[in-house]
Amino acid sequence: MTAPVPADVISRLKAVLGPGGFSEDAERIAPKLVEWRDRWVGTTPFLALPRTTEEVAAVVGVCFEAGQAITIQGGNTGLVGGQIPQGEILLSTERLSSIREVDALDDALIAEAGVTLSRVHEAAAEVRRRFPLGLASEGSATVGGVVSTNAGGTQVLRYGMARNLVLGLEAVLPNGEVWNGLKRLRKDNTGYDLKQFLIGAEGTLGVVTAAALKLYPVMASRAVAMIGVSSPDDAIRLLARAKDETGGAVEAFELMGRLGIDFALRNIAGTRDPLAAPHPWYVLAEFASGEPGSAETAMERFLAKGLKDGLVRDAVVAQTDTQAKALWAIRENQSPAQKPEGATWKHDVAVPVSLVPRFLEEASAAMRALVPGARIAAFGHVGDGNIHYDVLRPDGGSDAEHSALRDRGSRIVHDLVASLGGSISAEHGLGAMKTAEGARYKSEVELAAQRAIRLALDPKRILNPRVLF
Amino acid sequence: MTAPVPADVISRLKAVLGPGGFSEDAERIAPKLVEWRDRWVGTTPFLALPRTTEEVAAVVGVCFEAGQAITIQGGNTGLVGGQIPQGEILLSTERLSSIREVDALDDALIAEAGVTLSRVHEAAAEVRRRFPLGLASEGSATVGGVVSTNAGGTQVLRYGMARNLVLGLEAVLPNGEVWNGLKRLRKDNTGYDLKQFLIGAEGTLGVVTAAALKLYPVMASRAVAMIGVSSPDDAIRLLARAKDETGGAVEAFELMGRLGIDFALRNIAGTRDPLAAPHPWYVLAEFASGEPGSAETAMERFLAKGLKDGLVRDAVVAQTDTQAKALWAIRENQSPAQKPEGATWKHDVAVPVSLVPRFLEEASAAMRALVPGARIAAFGHVGDGNIHYDVLRPDGGSDAEHSALRDRGSRIVHDLVASLGGSISAEHGLGAMKTAEGARYKSEVELAAQRAIRLALDPKRILNPRVLF
Repeated sequence: MTAPVPADVISRLKAVLGPGGFSEDAERIAPKLVEWRDRWVGTTPFLALPRTTEEVAAVVGVCFEAGQAITIQGGNTGLVGGQIPQGEILLSTERLSSIREVDALDDALIAEAGVTLSRVHEAAAEVRRRFPLGLASEGSATVGGVVSTNAGGTQVLRYGMARNLVLGLEAVLPNGEVWNGLKRLRKDNTGYDLKQFLIGAEGTLGVVTAAALKLYPVMASRAVAMIGVSSPDDAIRLLARAKDETGGAVEAFELMGRLGIDFALRNIAGTRDPLAAPHPWYVLAEFASGEPGSAETAMERFLAKGLKDGLVRDAVVAQTDTQAKALWAIRENQSPAQKPEGATWKHDVAVPVSLVPRFLEEASAAMRALVPGARIAAFGHVGDGNIHYDVLRPDGGSDAEHSALRDRGSRIVHDLVASLGGSISAEHGLGAMKTAEGARYKSEVELAAQRAIRLALDPKRILNPRVLF
Repeated sequence: MTAPVPADVISRLKAVLGPGGFSEDAERIAPKLVEWRDRWVGTTPFLALPRTTEEVAAVVGVCFEAGQAITIQGGNTGLVGGQIPQGEILLSTERLSSIREVDALDDALIAEAGVTLSRVHEAAAEVRRRFPLGLASEGSATVGGVVSTNAGGTQVLRYGMARNLVLGLEAVLPNGEVWNGLKRLRKDNTGYDLKQFLIGAEGTLGVVTAAALKLYPVMASRAVAMIGVSSPDDAIRLLARAKDETGGAVEAFELMGRLGIDFALRNIAGTRDPLAAPHPWYVLAEFASGEPGSAETAMERFLAKGLKDGLVRDAVVAQTDTQAKALWAIRENQSPAQKPEGATWKHDVAVPVSLVPRFLEEASAAMRALVPGARIAAFGHVGDGNIHYDVLRPDGGSDAEHSALRDRGSRIVHDLVASLGGSISAEHGLGAMKTAEGARYKSEVELAAQRAIRLALDPKRILNPRVLF
């Protein structure tokens, strides 16, 4: 809990924001204090609701002068508690909600921080373009949050994370100054690329107020298949072949264990078993091409070859959009389908793609040694080496007992990940929740460098003070 | 010119490097003191030739302690004088020359800083992969330099600049500590992404000693065409259509004015006029696809449509590799072909793609007002909005007179670029040559942030002291 906010800071903030630019109403503030998984509940005496970049600058300026901490919140979809205040000022970007520009010739869209990802998708579609970053939470997640957390999603394999999809940024630096880096350039080598410093900094180096996003062409053909495979090893062999054969037309390559399919069948109404017989592992693959018909042809050839040499046990290709959506729903429901199954330890880890099978094998042996009967639901973006590795309590076991072992279990998973040169937070960031754990796996050299950079830009550590090092 | 290097620093450097690890021989050092365009000549009393990362760390450590400046040099292909010492220690990466690992399953290649780009290409090809960053200087340019300058090239349109092609880095920080960030991860959100700070920092935040580079599949089909067009405006309309129709299969889209073709015909032996009649502007387009035959089909359809509606005046598609190479040679010779034509002012600028026509029109009007009869050879990566904008003296004019006006002319070009939201150095960096000019177009907010970050990591400013802000 941070120190109480002095009354004079509050009155200066009110003055710069004006009526309607803030709230002290507990009911208005309440939804912003609870993380959607209910694992974090916060408190704040003052919600700043700036409508312009200049108002953000004024708020940050007042706080910088006073050494007053601020927590920044976008769509409140973060999973690591970074957006939840613990007594300090809460700055919401919700009223920074304009799409300033969409240009199909430049393949660029300029949106303010509070614009939701769904609105970006819609605006891009209106000019026959797309922004290839999709999240389950895209109806709420905002541009500022997506950029500040370097969000990923299911198309990273082809298009990269948010970092690769930003042409320019506008931000308010910790000292309250506006940095205008809202360029629409594809190339600019004139000193340090400040936008790259801000992307993924989780709001600790500045408040992103607007971003110029890269747009891409709409694809003419698309093929979605659910593939039964024997092992993660076969899955990554198939992945290498798919990338090779299609020249990079693989848009998604998602792995799921059978247990996750069983959970979906049991707990998500309307789910149908995608293949006639059960298989140990499943891959949801999507190819897309600018050439009409090309994705379908490539998928057919790919599956035929895999069936012939045994890497593919069985497969179904969606024949309609509805079928494609049904296959994707199985993947997207992997996490919700766990809910009725009881206590879980969740991990969002990455290892080099080639080490995914070894990670899964060694982690699962260790988990079952710790908790005999533990149910392991592993799924994720195997094309990026990113596995959501969830360990559920044994069938009929005690939630409390399982939860009590969470830290011990997670430590084992994270130690293994680190020993394989991996990441303990592939896409969710560290936020307030995982910062200590994150520090454990960084060298002193790296921590010192990160701290020096932060101190240089935010000497009073006012922005998101509990987040990162 | 920096201060003389103290004798005790030299003797400590000799001690950490050992025999064979340094040179004081003027003849051995000489080639490293001259930039290839002969515009920069430097001097140094001591060439450090570390063979390992630890030796680089020892050299930087000695210099950090003594506050001794170092200039870092890779393949010596830079165009802005960043690699040329002016009295300080010269650290060459030439003996950091191992390719440590090539992994086709991870699509990753780990190379030390002194490995040339050509060797990276060869090593990738051996596992049926490619590293999609090509430069005219790739036989000499090294991994360390490519990464530190965020190099571009002709495939940026599809694959991005060096920044997008790096999975991990190993570097020696200014204080002499080794930062091991040599991961092979596609996703890692655990704090600031230090590699993004080092990429494009032109060696001012650390000495890159090794990089993990992203590999890509080899394409199954490829089509190269030379297209005559009426105007840059038509060229960017065609570009938008090409991206749209092919779903992003455009690997290169290069614009050239007729004057550049004339120069090549006159000054480069073996050049043939690519089309039957002359055209005001030319586009060299390359499509590539993972689907056999698909690139050729897409190119034919694209050209047929363009011919029908007049965006394409005429076009030729390469039928063999030799023909494709001949078309590319015309593009690659645009710069060499200018040499016999006399004095030139060269610019490497970028503007938003949609503003390329306006930039060309306004810049050329201004140049001709300043120098009646000035010959303007504009060419470059129009797909990235990156134009190499070269202004040659009038036919038969005086070189000296033209050179005397260079600064005035360049200022006009750069002011125009800045007014269009552009960059005065799209791919070459600022180095020692353009740093003052670069600072002119940055806000005080941005310069202060950049200086604060540099000071935080290199408080004594020992690395490449004349480079950047």
